[in-house]
Amino acid sequence: MSGQNISSQAIIGERVRVGDAVRIYPWVEIGDDTVIEDYSILGHPTAYDRGRTVIGPGSTIRSHAVIYRDVETGPNFQTGHHTLVREGTRAGIDLRVGSYSDIEGDCVIGDYCRLHGYVHVGRGSRIGHFVWIFSSTTLLNDPLPPSHIASPVTIEDGVVVCVSCLVMPGTVLRRGVFITAGSHAHGEVPAGGVVKGTRGEVISHVSLLANLESQICHPWMRHFADAYPENARGRIEELLASILDSRSAYRRRSR
Amino acid sequence: MSGQNISSQAIIGERVRVGDAVRIYPWVEIGDDTVIEDYSILGHPTAYDRGRTVIGPGSTIRSHAVIYRDVETGPNFQTGHHTLVREGTRAGIDLRVGSYSDIEGDCVIGDYCRLHGYVHVGRGSRIGHFVWIFSSTTLLNDPLPPSHIASPVTIEDGVVVCVSCLVMPGTVLRRGVFITAGSHAHGEVPAGGVVKGTRGEVISHVSLLANLESQICHPWMRHFADAYPENARGRIEELLASILDSRSAYRRRSR
Amino acid sequence: MSGQNISSQAIIGERVRVGDAVRIYPWVEIGDDTVIEDYSILGHPTAYDRGRTVIGPGSTIRSHAVIYRDVETGPNFQTGHHTLVREGTRAGIDLRVGSYSDIEGDCVIGDYCRLHGYVHVGRGSRIGHFVWIFSSTTLLNDPLPPSHIASPVTIEDGVVVCVSCLVMPGTVLRRGVFITAGSHAHGEVPAGGVVKGTRGEVISHVSLLANLESQICHPWMRHFADAYPENARGRIEELLASILDSRSAYRRRSR
Repeated sequence: MSGQNISSQAIIGERVRVGDAVRIYPWVEIGDDTVIEDYSILGHPTAYDRGRTVIGPGSTIRSHAVIYRDVETGPNFQTGHHTLVREGTRAGIDLRVGSYSDIEGDCVIGDYCRLHGYVHVGRGSRIGHFVWIFSSTTLLNDPLPPSHIASPVTIEDGVVVCVSCLVMPGTVLRRGVFITAGSHAHGEVPAGGVVKGTRGEVISHVSLLANLESQICHPWMRHFADAYPENARGRIEELLASILDSRSAYRRRSR
Repeated sequence: MSGQNISSQAIIGERVRVGDAVRIYPWVEIGDDTVIEDYSILGHPTAYDRGRTVIGPGSTIRSHAVIYRDVETGPNFQTGHHTLVREGTRAGIDLRVGSYSDIEGDCVIGDYCRLHGYVHVGRGSRIGHFVWIFSSTTLLNDPLPPSHIASPVTIEDGVVVCVSCLVMPGTVLRRGVFITAGSHAHGEVPAGGVVKGTRGEVISHVSLLANLESQICHPWMRHFADAYPENARGRIEELLASILDSRSAYRRRSR
Repeated sequence: MSGQNISSQAIIGERVRVGDAVRIYPWVEIGDDTVIEDYSILGHPTAYDRGRTVIGPGSTIRSHAVIYRDVETGPNFQTGHHTLVREGTRAGIDLRVGSYSDIEGDCVIGDYCRLHGYVHVGRGSRIGHFVWIFSSTTLLNDPLPPSHIASPVTIEDGVVVCVSCLVMPGTVLRRGVFITAGSHAHGEVPAGGVVKGTRGEVISHVSLLANLESQICHPWMRHFADAYPENARGRIEELLASILDSRSAYRRRSR
């Protein structure tokens, strides 16, 4: 290994492997068994002094990633390549963020969330647990750009946002909402709602979605157990029940 | 600092800070008080020999950026991380280009423009002053791809293009135009026009836009003074007056 | 050159130029006359051991690129900057993949294909010869995300997919199909079909497309000879004839 630029004040856990040409700033703390790949930067300085950057144990920061100062993640944090996480963000257990994704800063992200590639999370977004956001989706935060009005997005537990969606400023996606690929979501989408199209219309309830070929029905949590560790099973069952409950409210609305 | 690869022929101003593993080619000239972050390349060679790369004073080139040969920027140029600027581009004062954005080459960009992240500016685009382009927007240039017909976009002063828009080849956005998120613009959009939807329909005039909660009205220049230095105030007032003037033409058209 | 990290077990051809701070793993084989630019990684390890990474002669891997283990490309492979190619992908002659593009893995790509920037190719996609995919287009593969149902896209020879399209899971684009900018394609699109809009409607045949100003008609292969070497001419003529043939089937359908 050569060209490393690791501050002697940084706190590096046991069995941490650091790649080539990595820069680690003094205010960084890296948990045990973490891998930091080549050409990455941890603890990138901010305009004003802020807090420490804490990466949980068992994490993997892939190459060319940039994690700013004042970011804290839970254990098993994983980034793709060229991923960017700005200052002030807090993330729970097992967050995965794909390649070329940009978490803009001051975001709160819960446990077991997965963001794929090219996902752009606007500053101040609030994301719950067990949320999936697929590639090229943007969470906006400025209702009349360019303005100083911050109107970030709120996404509750178990939400799925498919590829290339726009989640407009101030949108609230209640638990278990499903946004189909290429759609725009706005306003408050009730629990379990399925949104399709650029008008953000709620067209169905997530429990009614099925793949025609495979007959597999959503919610996905029932048939996707391997994505989560054994000890998350209880929380998943509770969430699943809560999303299925919301179906009766959906039926009343659609009559 | 280690692993630097800076040509002794490059002209480096006073108080320039250069990061780790940066490559600077011989034909590069960097103004005073500029910061070049880690893993960046300045003056990347082109297929055929071209001119010098000149970065204005007070600039910040963030990590993993690639600036080609034959690029000239004014003072206070700022890039995000992983930003790409291709050969032949000329930019004015205070240009900011966000992370993962790609300015394809031979573009002309005026003063005080701000391009956010994932913005893709097609080769040969012409962009005026005080222009904002939000993330994931693409300026196209090929009307029947793949062809050899170059039909780049022209964007006049004070235009705002929101998130995830397509500005189709040959589009002309007159001064003060506002393109809402997820829209497609084409043809000539008259001054102050508000475009919404994938058909590129002009639905309003920018002076009539307002945020319902805050009662703040566009044009944004009136309430966004802190984005610009004091000495740009005169030019902003002139531009604002000119955009407001265009409202009467809009009214005549819509009758 | 400094900071290189090149395995002595890697097989490096004649006249290969390797940039600064490049990592090359032991299972990599690089053809003659290839250029590997700064801050790139060749043969990035995979979760499970896989095969060799073979880069054909005459290739250019631009800066900040990451090519995984078990990738094989033909001669004259070219990447943009920050390009990502995951494990298991096989590519033919003269593949070009633009900056920030991500080929997810286990893809098969034919000869003379060109993918522009920010193109996201889902795992398992099948792409024929002489295919163009323009920037920010996504080929999806999961019909009910997140699921374990893999339903990748098939794209036949001579297809053109313009900027910012979604090619939905399981889509089959027959030879010569043309997808206009911002459209969504799904199902099976017959040979030579022109798709426009987010409903994926086939609105015309590619031989009827023309640029109004220049009177240049598609198929583009007739007027784009310089994009391909002399010895590909025969294959192009054959493909062109086959696409023009499909026009009669289109006419019958549209009556």
